[in-house]
Amino acid sequence: MPLSEDILNGDFLSISRAITQVENGSAEAREVLDAVSSRVGGALRIGLTGPPGVGKSTTVDELAAVYLARGEKVAIIAVDPTSPFTGGALLGDRIRMSKMAEGNRIFMRSMATRGSSGGLARATQDAVDLLDASGRTVILIETVGVGQSEIEISRAADCVLVMLSPESGDGIQAMKSGLLEIADLIAINKADRGGAERMEQDLKTAFELGLRSRRDIPILITEAIRSKGIPELVAAIDALLLSRRASGAFQERRRNNMENRIKQIAEFLIHKNLWASNGAGGKVAAAADQVLARRQSPYQGAQELVREVLR
Amino acid sequence: MPLSEDILNGDFLSISRAITQVENGSAEAREVLDAVSSRVGGALRIGLTGPPGVGKSTTVDELAAVYLARGEKVAIIAVDPTSPFTGGALLGDRIRMSKMAEGNRIFMRSMATRGSSGGLARATQDAVDLLDASGRTVILIETVGVGQSEIEISRAADCVLVMLSPESGDGIQAMKSGLLEIADLIAINKADRGGAERMEQDLKTAFELGLRSRRDIPILITEAIRSKGIPELVAAIDALLLSRRASGAFQERRRNNMENRIKQIAEFLIHKNLWASNGAGGKVAAAADQVLARRQSPYQGAQELVREVLR
Repeated sequence: MPLSEDILNGDFLSISRAITQVENGSAEAREVLDAVSSRVGGALRIGLTGPPGVGKSTTVDELAAVYLARGEKVAIIAVDPTSPFTGGALLGDRIRMSKMAEGNRIFMRSMATRGSSGGLARATQDAVDLLDASGRTVILIETVGVGQSEIEISRAADCVLVMLSPESGDGIQAMKSGLLEIADLIAINKADRGGAERMEQDLKTAFELGLRSRRDIPILITEAIRSKGIPELVAAIDALLLSRRASGAFQERRRNNMENRIKQIAEFLIHKNLWASNGAGGKVAAAADQVLARRQSPYQGAQELVREVLR
Repeated sequence: MPLSEDILNGDFLSISRAITQVENGSAEAREVLDAVSSRVGGALRIGLTGPPGVGKSTTVDELAAVYLARGEKVAIIAVDPTSPFTGGALLGDRIRMSKMAEGNRIFMRSMATRGSSGGLARATQDAVDLLDASGRTVILIETVGVGQSEIEISRAADCVLVMLSPESGDGIQAMKSGLLEIADLIAINKADRGGAERMEQDLKTAFELGLRSRRDIPILITEAIRSKGIPELVAAIDALLLSRRASGAFQERRRNNMENRIKQIAEFLIHKNLWASNGAGGKVAAAADQVLARRQSPYQGAQELVREVLR
């Protein structure tokens, strides 16, 4: 299978092509994923999320530069669950790559919702697997944090950095957004705007009050646009991963992530087959008729339908 | 069953309590929905969506006031797919209700994501059914348009008004967001900011170029904050619904919506039972082990799992 071989050899164009197949949910994508699966698992997967405008892209670029300088083979996946279209742009359609002008040393790809948010999470994880198999050693997964998708996508990562800015509100506000519950590290960016220390204090208070399991989470103060705080951030990530590898927590998380992922794929496969079966369309229509004639509730109709199609 | 009787009698507090049960996915919610199903179907369901800041709440309130003056029993459901928390506030936690100070004449409820976006869409549709059964005759469903959820939620409506503002970009931009594909009517709000006519022209050009099926869509120019253009908007909704009822398109859409909904509920019921079955947890763990040991891909693991748990 030539495409999977080209991917294993690290060819950017072939990886990009396979990611497009993954986004489209094509049968070829499945074949490629199956073919490269014995080479997946070596790369570190770092998630990065936060509200719009917090400086995610800048920070990701800074982190990428640090890992690149260390000799890592870096990939960036920028996921936008709020946009139903993707540029699918190899090396990015933004000016952001200018800092890495040394040539094609970083693989960069943006992904957006085609179908459901569940589909995007699945495609993102598949893309990460392809990059992992291709020999990338550090994969940065950047997602805008505005809803639920970033939570699903974060489940694909070995650790998640949540970014906040002093402008994005107080610690309580950040807690309400649900973002802190998925954070392994927190970076308060845009320190130049003032209020970063105050926010750090708010967060610590919030953790004492409500999210006690998050009490020991590292909180960094950064100003990514001036590369400030980035070495400290990388050091904090290193320390976290080192301690988790030693305790077994790293492996346990991978296992939990994989169990979740397999369940989601199983559900997806069931759906795909469920409505394709012979006569399913007529059964759905009959159930809808019964509900519209007020003879049953949608749940009663669905329950009956499940019994019939799984029989 | 007292709760369902109180709902059929139109008691706001009972409706609100049942909506909370629906949000929590409790067993009582199912019972109530089943019990009231013979009374569901009379209400008109109008969806309203658009980007943040476009004036959705103001417009919904204006529409509600018009329908109220006509003698309709109005309900407003404000759905926020970007927030994982809900106030669950009866009559709203915002100042917006001040215009309707005549007492509890409008039922108002906000809903937000608890679990997945699919769960929110399901809960919203259930809440609309409860309101319909309670005797509300016009149900306005307001959703912020930033991702996929508003598309799912729009499928619950008899017609969807998409709101844009001249500030939210040109027609091409609106097309890219995917919002226009679910629009039955378009309102360009904030006409006082200028650029509304220009945007209307852009939209028409966009429809000629790419979305020809949308060519005949009514485009209204409004300034909801000053109640301008609202009578014309209501007249356009009336005309649209009248013509659709005459052609059968109204009933056909309800049927399509119901088929979609039943399928989604069926998928949900399957999931719920799938992983609860005896030994399913062990099978998932075994599949994850195989993937982590690089002996199979996640898809191969999931495929095998589906075979086993559905056997």
